[in-house]
Amino acid sequence: MTALFDNQTTFSASSQVFKGLVGDIGGTNARFAIAERGGGQTKLTEFKSFHTDGYKDLYAVIDDYFGGLSGRPDLDFSVIAVAGPVNDGAIKFTNLDWLVTETELAHHTSARKVRLINDYAGLAYALPHLQDEDTRRIGPVREGKGNVHAVMGAGTGFGASVLVGGPYGPYCLSTESGHASWAPVNDFEREIHRFLSKKHGRVTIEMVLSGPGLVNLYKAVTNVRGEPTLSLTPAQITHLDGPDAQGSRYTVETFLDILASVSGDLSLCHGATAGLFIAGGIAPKLAKYIDEARFRARMEAKAPLVAYVEAIPSRIITHECAALIGAANALTDAEILA
Amino acid sequence: MTALFDNQTTFSASSQVFKGLVGDIGGTNARFAIAERGGGQTKLTEFKSFHTDGYKDLYAVIDDYFGGLSGRPDLDFSVIAVAGPVNDGAIKFTNLDWLVTETELAHHTSARKVRLINDYAGLAYALPHLQDEDTRRIGPVREGKGNVHAVMGAGTGFGASVLVGGPYGPYCLSTESGHASWAPVNDFEREIHRFLSKKHGRVTIEMVLSGPGLVNLYKAVTNVRGEPTLSLTPAQITHLDGPDAQGSRYTVETFLDILASVSGDLSLCHGATAGLFIAGGIAPKLAKYIDEARFRARMEAKAPLVAYVEAIPSRIITHECAALIGAANALTDAEILA
Repeated sequence: MTALFDNQTTFSASSQVFKGLVGDIGGTNARFAIAERGGGQTKLTEFKSFHTDGYKDLYAVIDDYFGGLSGRPDLDFSVIAVAGPVNDGAIKFTNLDWLVTETELAHHTSARKVRLINDYAGLAYALPHLQDEDTRRIGPVREGKGNVHAVMGAGTGFGASVLVGGPYGPYCLSTESGHASWAPVNDFEREIHRFLSKKHGRVTIEMVLSGPGLVNLYKAVTNVRGEPTLSLTPAQITHLDGPDAQGSRYTVETFLDILASVSGDLSLCHGATAGLFIAGGIAPKLAKYIDEARFRARMEAKAPLVAYVEAIPSRIITHECAALIGAANALTDAEILA
Repeated sequence: MTALFDNQTTFSASSQVFKGLVGDIGGTNARFAIAERGGGQTKLTEFKSFHTDGYKDLYAVIDDYFGGLSGRPDLDFSVIAVAGPVNDGAIKFTNLDWLVTETELAHHTSARKVRLINDYAGLAYALPHLQDEDTRRIGPVREGKGNVHAVMGAGTGFGASVLVGGPYGPYCLSTESGHASWAPVNDFEREIHRFLSKKHGRVTIEMVLSGPGLVNLYKAVTNVRGEPTLSLTPAQITHLDGPDAQGSRYTVETFLDILASVSGDLSLCHGATAGLFIAGGIAPKLAKYIDEARFRARMEAKAPLVAYVEAIPSRIITHECAALIGAANALTDAEILA
């Protein structure tokens, strides 16, 4: 095991041991584990995933999770990462019709300290605790400079956050970068942009880099190339073996080119000299199609700042429970004890 | 005087009084002052501006500055804000052929603590110390949410940084957002984008939002509109009374539309819910042409996140020495005393 960062200097290592309930709640799955952290280590046990269908609220899922454990655990903290914006300690899941609040969560878990965080904040807090084998490196750069890291990724939507280490850290800056406007960089992409703007008006990063974005891109790519557009799901597109193999292949190539381009742009916008991490459900599925040299060439094509981006390491997070590890480390010792 | 932020809660107020040399060095001017800070107040005295022409290095300018004072001041700190990236405590001004290092600066100023910072970091550190009358508000929103602020602006280039307050602050995130790719949002802008990409390849934010960017935009706008393109300077374009009044007017309108659009995008990328500040040499010159409703409409046109951006206050910094005020507050008390 090789740690990605020198945690002793970049992030404060805690010697106290704390136990917590950690969760990662998406649109269709709720995943939980019991986390024990201390001495720079994070251990997850009792991992369990639930389909959210049929549950009236998150608290009912948590009750089922606790019911499967041998005894209700005594918890120092509970941190739940959620796919959506947390406002004043609450999140409303629009597709699930669930309202989750920190107050209710504290009541249901009896944890000393409770926090709801965005799922990309969860991924950010995980970074100092990932090992080399929890990621796949893209390109030759192993170590970055400074202590600002960016994590971004395409899934149901496009998420992005920033983790700052050093004397200020770990501090997580939550962003809404996925809703920033998408910048095409050549004639082909400008035609895709024009096609999508006819239906969507402004074209956002999320409109091309997400599950629904794959379908948008497929429609645009086939249209711009003057080829028939079939009705395909994101899974049919990413498997490349669906009814339109050629259209799927061009779409995935375009998706990866744009992902690389946006990675470079957001590295500049986030000042992320220490490293760029790609998470989300889609990139690991497409990892086998990534041409590392082509990806880095697109990412680094940021003249006059080529040298700046060239020095930034890029990695895909392959650890399946990264957000849970981050949730386990989102609160400082002082915050838990407060 | 009305402070923009409640500094008592957002930023720690220092009771100790420190004296420092502060500077703001651009491509053609070097500006200095003696700063006294303490008790939440920052006082600048002995302000002087120098043309950099003819000086062999920055230290020679500082010697001239000290020569004009009644006695060499006893300095707790010296912080110089520079238009360019600071690497390992040094900056190389390419257009001036100057190398400035913190080590040499410490030697020349005899200050206890010395720091070189980027000029947009200087502007970021100034934010908690600005009064209502040091800015011009654009739009009706007076107060934002949270404690993440963005400052950006067009001048010789396009700079941007983020200031985080609260328990972590003040922390400044330096970014290279001006070199991120520019995203057009309608057919007219896509044509401008296509025109500029023929000459420049990738089109960056700085290529349209800066002094040289004004000239690029003028060429593109007149070309796309099928009108003759004259040879104009940025000043001729922004005064609107040059040899091509119509072309200048369309260019300035387009510049302000794009500035508003980029302001919204970077607010999303920086998670800047507490406020957006526009600095730089150009915006104050164009302030009289800004249609507030049109600016906010472009800034807020970020569906599905309209409500998020609508709630962000936007202001133009009109204080002429904002970067010097920031330089005076870039170091914490603990850093000065260390």
